[in-house]
Amino acid sequence: MHALPDPDASQPDDTPAHPQRDSRAGQIYEAAARVFCERGFGQSSMNDVATAMHMTKAGIYHHISSKDELLFGIMSYGMDLFEERVVDRVEDIRDPMERLRAAIRAHVLLYTRDRPKEITVILNEPQSLRGDYRAQINRRKRRYVRFLNQTFRELKAEGRMRDIDPRVATFSLLGMINWIYQWYAQDGRLRDTELAEAYIDLFLNGVVRQDAAAKVSSS
Amino acid sequence: MHALPDPDASQPDDTPAHPQRDSRAGQIYEAAARVFCERGFGQSSMNDVATAMHMTKAGIYHHISSKDELLFGIMSYGMDLFEERVVDRVEDIRDPMERLRAAIRAHVLLYTRDRPKEITVILNEPQSLRGDYRAQINRRKRRYVRFLNQTFRELKAEGRMRDIDPRVATFSLLGMINWIYQWYAQDGRLRDTELAEAYIDLFLNGVVRQDAAAKVSSS
Repeated sequence: MHALPDPDASQPDDTPAHPQRDSRAGQIYEAAARVFCERGFGQSSMNDVATAMHMTKAGIYHHISSKDELLFGIMSYGMDLFEERVVDRVEDIRDPMERLRAAIRAHVLLYTRDRPKEITVILNEPQSLRGDYRAQINRRKRRYVRFLNQTFRELKAEGRMRDIDPRVATFSLLGMINWIYQWYAQDGRLRDTELAEAYIDLFLNGVVRQDAAAKVSSS
Repeated sequence: MHALPDPDASQPDDTPAHPQRDSRAGQIYEAAARVFCERGFGQSSMNDVATAMHMTKAGIYHHISSKDELLFGIMSYGMDLFEERVVDRVEDIRDPMERLRAAIRAHVLLYTRDRPKEITVILNEPQSLRGDYRAQINRRKRRYVRFLNQTFRELKAEGRMRDIDPRVATFSLLGMINWIYQWYAQDGRLRDTELAEAYIDLFLNGVVRQDAAAKVSSS
């Protein structure tokens, strides 16, 4: 799983999950992430990656041992970004409601403002990674699931949440946010910050006007 | 795009979107949908489909002209199922709130109870279909987006919906429901009907206890 030492890099690059972005191996990860985003992992070949790098396939294999290693390195880097920008920033917020708001905001903004291609690959290719690589990425995904689940449990224990299964709340929220990749365009129709606040509002308060609830339940 | 007439079938099979399930072409679509679900489209070859059918690749090509045609046929059938079980059943409900509830219920139950592999392929492979095939499937997906959007507009016009952009409501709901494929297991922990009602409740009323809202906004 480790890349070979890169003669072009100023430091030895033995951490494919955090490739030096200015090393040759790092550039290969960058190019591969672009290729996988555009064509999908299954439809991409090491030849495509080589072409994008203006290198030979043998040149690529000097740095990277397999397409699977490349995918794992990209996803690991995507998870690093996700943890750094979302989980690490919000998990110490004491009030669970504020923690939840901050998590939704950071998560939505990461997707809408930054749109890291490594995270696009994670979302587009849930089935492409195999074996132990897949298990490692799934373990990191589960950390966020546990974090959300725990936040909903706290809200419930404090009597601040409606009678909803924390697991259902967790996966509903994940679905709402992860789907953003499928439809949100940075076309100015809806600004990223507006979307983040709208998601917080919709998820916390629902769609129905409460003063119209009586009308609803009698309809 | 049309399959060749199937000598094994009792009727000529010229509708790949609705292959006769008992014809040889129909069986190939069935097998291919299973293969694409398990391995992903990009990682599957016509050889894999042939192996699953105990046929030669030439035998497969007697019925199907390309892997892309196969994917399009599978997705078209998935859209047929979706329209038949969800959109067609609910679009004539006059009251928009009841229509929305019925749509969420039908959509969730289709995914949790029936889990058609053709719909799994649609959800897993949004990027795999190309050109005109992709445009045709996207056109059918947009029909449901328009249906939801229109329902939210009606709710808003009637003063029954909070101040939420109908587009945000539409895509939030689609995300919540489409994500079910990623996590829901038929393990009995959460019954399909319970999940459907929980989704209706959560989406319409949100997570926060309204009598705790004051506490929330002051926190």
